[in-house]
Amino acid sequence: IAKEVAKLLEMKAQLGGDEGKHKFVLKTPKGTRDYSPKQMAIRERVFNVIITCFKRHGAEVIDTPVFELKETLTGKYGEDSKLIYDLKDQGGELLSLRYDLTVPFARYLAMNKITNIKRYHIAKVYRRDNPAMTRGRYREFYQCDFDIAGQFDPMIPDAECLKIVHEILSDLQLGDFLIKVNDRRILDGMFAVCGVPDSKFRTICSSVDKLDKTPWEEVRSEMVGEKGLSPEAADHIGEYVQLHGGLDLIEGLLQDPKLSQNKLAKEGLGDMKLLFEYLTLFGITGKISFDLSLARGLDYYTGVIFEAVLLQQENDHVEEPVSVGSGAGGGRYDGLVGMFDPKGRKVPCVGVSIGIERIFSILEQRVEASEEKIRTTETQVLVASAQKKLLEERLKLISELWDAGIKAEVLYKKNPKLLNQLQYCEDTGIPLVAIVGEQELKDGVVKLRVVATREEVNVRRESLVEEIRMRTSQ
Amino acid sequence: IAKEVAKLLEMKAQLGGDEGKHKFVLKTPKGTRDYSPKQMAIRERVFNVIITCFKRHGAEVIDTPVFELKETLTGKYGEDSKLIYDLKDQGGELLSLRYDLTVPFARYLAMNKITNIKRYHIAKVYRRDNPAMTRGRYREFYQCDFDIAGQFDPMIPDAECLKIVHEILSDLQLGDFLIKVNDRRILDGMFAVCGVPDSKFRTICSSVDKLDKTPWEEVRSEMVGEKGLSPEAADHIGEYVQLHGGLDLIEGLLQDPKLSQNKLAKEGLGDMKLLFEYLTLFGITGKISFDLSLARGLDYYTGVIFEAVLLQQENDHVEEPVSVGSGAGGGRYDGLVGMFDPKGRKVPCVGVSIGIERIFSILEQRVEASEEKIRTTETQVLVASAQKKLLEERLKLISELWDAGIKAEVLYKKNPKLLNQLQYCEDTGIPLVAIVGEQELKDGVVKLRVVATREEVNVRRESLVEEIRMRTSQ
Repeated sequence: IAKEVAKLLEMKAQLGGDEGKHKFVLKTPKGTRDYSPKQMAIRERVFNVIITCFKRHGAEVIDTPVFELKETLTGKYGEDSKLIYDLKDQGGELLSLRYDLTVPFARYLAMNKITNIKRYHIAKVYRRDNPAMTRGRYREFYQCDFDIAGQFDPMIPDAECLKIVHEILSDLQLGDFLIKVNDRRILDGMFAVCGVPDSKFRTICSSVDKLDKTPWEEVRSEMVGEKGLSPEAADHIGEYVQLHGGLDLIEGLLQDPKLSQNKLAKEGLGDMKLLFEYLTLFGITGKISFDLSLARGLDYYTGVIFEAVLLQQENDHVEEPVSVGSGAGGGRYDGLVGMFDPKGRKVPCVGVSIGIERIFSILEQRVEASEEKIRTTETQVLVASAQKKLLEERLKLISELWDAGIKAEVLYKKNPKLLNQLQYCEDTGIPLVAIVGEQELKDGVVKLRVVATREEVNVRRESLVEEIRMRTSQ
Repeated sequence: IAKEVAKLLEMKAQLGGDEGKHKFVLKTPKGTRDYSPKQMAIRERVFNVIITCFKRHGAEVIDTPVFELKETLTGKYGEDSKLIYDLKDQGGELLSLRYDLTVPFARYLAMNKITNIKRYHIAKVYRRDNPAMTRGRYREFYQCDFDIAGQFDPMIPDAECLKIVHEILSDLQLGDFLIKVNDRRILDGMFAVCGVPDSKFRTICSSVDKLDKTPWEEVRSEMVGEKGLSPEAADHIGEYVQLHGGLDLIEGLLQDPKLSQNKLAKEGLGDMKLLFEYLTLFGITGKISFDLSLARGLDYYTGVIFEAVLLQQENDHVEEPVSVGSGAGGGRYDGLVGMFDPKGRKVPCVGVSIGIERIFSILEQRVEASEEKIRTTETQVLVASAQKKLLEERLKLISELWDAGIKAEVLYKKNPKLLNQLQYCEDTGIPLVAIVGEQELKDGVVKLRVVATREEVNVRRESLVEEIRMRTSQ
C-alpha cells in the first residue's frame, strides 16, 4: 500500500509540476500594478506639487529600507498587524515589508538619537489588504509623508501640518475638500464621561472610526452588541459624535459641565482652541471642521488627529457634494519614538500623509475624460533626413545636439522615410524636426521644421542649438 | 512525561520570549541602510544628472511593483537565483522581491504586447548577497536602467547606450573611466574555436567573468581543475582574453584564421566593427576598449555586452590608475521578452544599468574629504522677530510668503531669542531673515537681513516677496 501511495503521490507531483508550467500567468501580483509612461507623467505632476510644498516648508528628505526587522513593526499597528507582509525565513534576520513610513521614521530617530527634524519621505508601503482597486486601493502604494519631530511650543507644528494639507489639495485643483480635525484626548475624555470603561477605549474608538462609512445605528449596535457597551453609554457617545463646527463648538464644549471636568478633554479642547487661532492666522479655517466623530484607526496617535475628505459634485442636479474618500490624514504621536529608545526617551512628533493613490486616480480619470494629450517624453527635436545614406550625418548631428544639452531623438533605421519621421513627431509630440540633406550639408545649414505649422527655415549649423533652445523654451 | 515536557517547553518559550524582548536591536536589516538628509542631497544630485541624460535621449519612464510572482523570476538569473528574496507564503500567490529591473521590464513588455519602447526606470532591487559594505555593495540598492526595445537596424541603439554611459560618467565628474565592450557571440565563437564543448560554454564564460578581479593563473586552474577543461583549450582561451584594443583589433580578428571561420564570431565581429564606426561618429572611442576578457555574469545576454570601469589615481606617486569598480554595465538581450510571451514572440532589447551605489559612495567620500557644506533644505528665508509676543505676526507673515511660493521657515517657539534664530540660519544655510518688530509693523515694513553679510534693509511689506525672489534667484 505504501508503495502504491508513493507512486500516486509522485504521479500527482508530476502532474502538478506540469500543470504549474502550463498555467504560468503573465501578471503582476494581486493588488499591485505597473505604471505606464502616461500614468507616470501624471504621477510625476502630482509628486512635483507635493515635493514643492514640502520644500516650501523647509523639509529635509530621508529614505529608509523597504523592509524592517519584523520586531520593529511588532505592536505598532493594533488589529492591522495581520496585514503586514513578512519575508520568508531564508536564514538570518526575520524581516517584514514596511506598513507605513511613520514607524520607520520613529525607528530612524531613535537609532540616530535625533531629537529635532522636519523631514519628508515619499516611498511605497505594503498592506495585505483586500483591495477594491476601482476605488484606488492597492496592496502596494505610495505614501507622501511630512513630519515635524521635536519639543516645541504647543500646536505651532500641528497648525503647519494642516496648512500643508490645505496648500497641496488646493494646488492639485482636486475640487472642494474639507479637513476634519479632532484630538485623541478629547475622544478619550468623551469616552470617560460617557461611561466607557478604560479597557474599552481603543475598541470603542475603532467603532467610532467607522462612522465615515457606516450609519450611526450600525456602529451603535456594534458597540452594544459585539463590544458589550451599555446602551446608555452608546447613546451618550451618539450625541457627542454628531457635533462638528469651529471655534464656537470648542468654546461650547469647554463649558460642557461633564467634559470640562475631565482633565484630558480639557487639555485637548484648550489645544484645539489654540490650533484654531493659528489656523485663523493662516486664513484656512473655511475648510477646517472640528468633528467629534473623527477617530482614525492607528494606535499610535496621542493628540491632534485630522483627515482631509475630497468632495465632488456627483452631477449638476445634486446639490450636496459627496465624499470621494480621504486625500490626506495625520496627527500627533508623542509616544512612538520612545517605544524604540532603550531608555524610553520621548520625541514628540506630528505629521501628515498625503493619499497619493486616491488623488492619482481622480486625476487619471479626469485626463481620460478630457482627452487631453499627455506627452511622455521631453524630446525637443527629431534629427531626420529626406534622402537615403545619411545615417552617419544624422548620428553626427544628434551627437552635437546631445553634447549641447538638447533633448533629441533619431529613428534607429538606416534609411527611414521622411513621412515616417514626421509621423513619429506627430505621435509623440516632438515639436521640431532638424532635417539634414545633401544640399543642406553643402550649404552648412540644417532645415528646421516646426511640426505644428509645417513652417521650414534653414538655420546655420552653428546657430542650430541656440535656435532650438529659443523655439522650445518653456 | 508528556506533561513535564509540555511544562518545560512552555518555560523555554517564555524564556525565549523574554530574551527576545530584551535583546531587541535597534538597526536596519543586514545589508541595508537609511539615507540621512545629507546623503539624500548627494543622491539627488546624482539622480538628477542621470535622469537629465535619459530624458535627453527621449526616454519615457515606467514603474513596476517591488515584488513579482516568484515564477516570473524563475530561470532568469542562472546561479544567482539563490540570492533572490522570497516573501513568506501567507496564503495566495508566491512572491519574490525583484532582483533587477530588466526581467520586470521584459515581463511588462510581454504582458502589454509592447514591441517598441525606449524607457528608463529608477528603483531599488534586492539581492541576498554577502555585502562588503565598505566597497559600496548592499542587499538593497538602486538601479538606474535605460533600455531600447524594438526591431531596428543593427547597432544604432547599442551605440546610443554607450553614448549614454559616456555622457553620464563625464557629467558626474568621477574622474577617468574606461568602457569595455565585447559580444556574447564573439565569446561563444572563441570558446568553440578553442575547443570548449558546447555544454561548458556558460560555466567557462562565468570563469572568464572573474578575470577583472582574479589573475589568469587562478582562472585557468578553475577551468582545468574544477570544470574539467583541457589544458590546451584553456591556454588557447588565455591567449585570446588578453587581447584588447579598437578597430585595429577587430580588423585583425576578422582575419584570424580560426575565428573568421566561426559563424557566430564573424557576426559578432562584423557588428562590433559597425559599433565602432558609430562610436567614432559620436566621438567617444577614446574611452572605449574592445576587450575579449569581458564576459558579464547574467544569463540573458545575447549580443553586445559592456561595462564601464572607474579609474582612480591611488595617490600622486603611482602612475597607473586603479580600477575602483564598475560604474555601469549592460548589453543586448534579444531572447528575454520571448520567454514571457505565450507564443514566444521575441522583442530585441538593449540596455544599460548605472551602478549608482558605487558612484554615490565615491561622491560621498569626496564631499567628506572636501568639507564642502551641503545644504539639505532649500529654505530662502527665516521669519523671525526681535521682541516677544510676536508669534501671531510671524505666522501671518510666513503664511503670506508660503502662499506666494516662497520657501520659508519659522521657529516653533512663542518667544525665540533673535540670536537663536540667526544661529539656526547659520547652521542650516538659510540666506535671508525677515524680521518683524513693533516699529516695523507700524511702518508697514519688514527688516530683511542677509545672513552672510549681516546687511539689513527695510523692505515695504508689499515688495517683500519680490525682494526675496530677487535676492535668492540662483
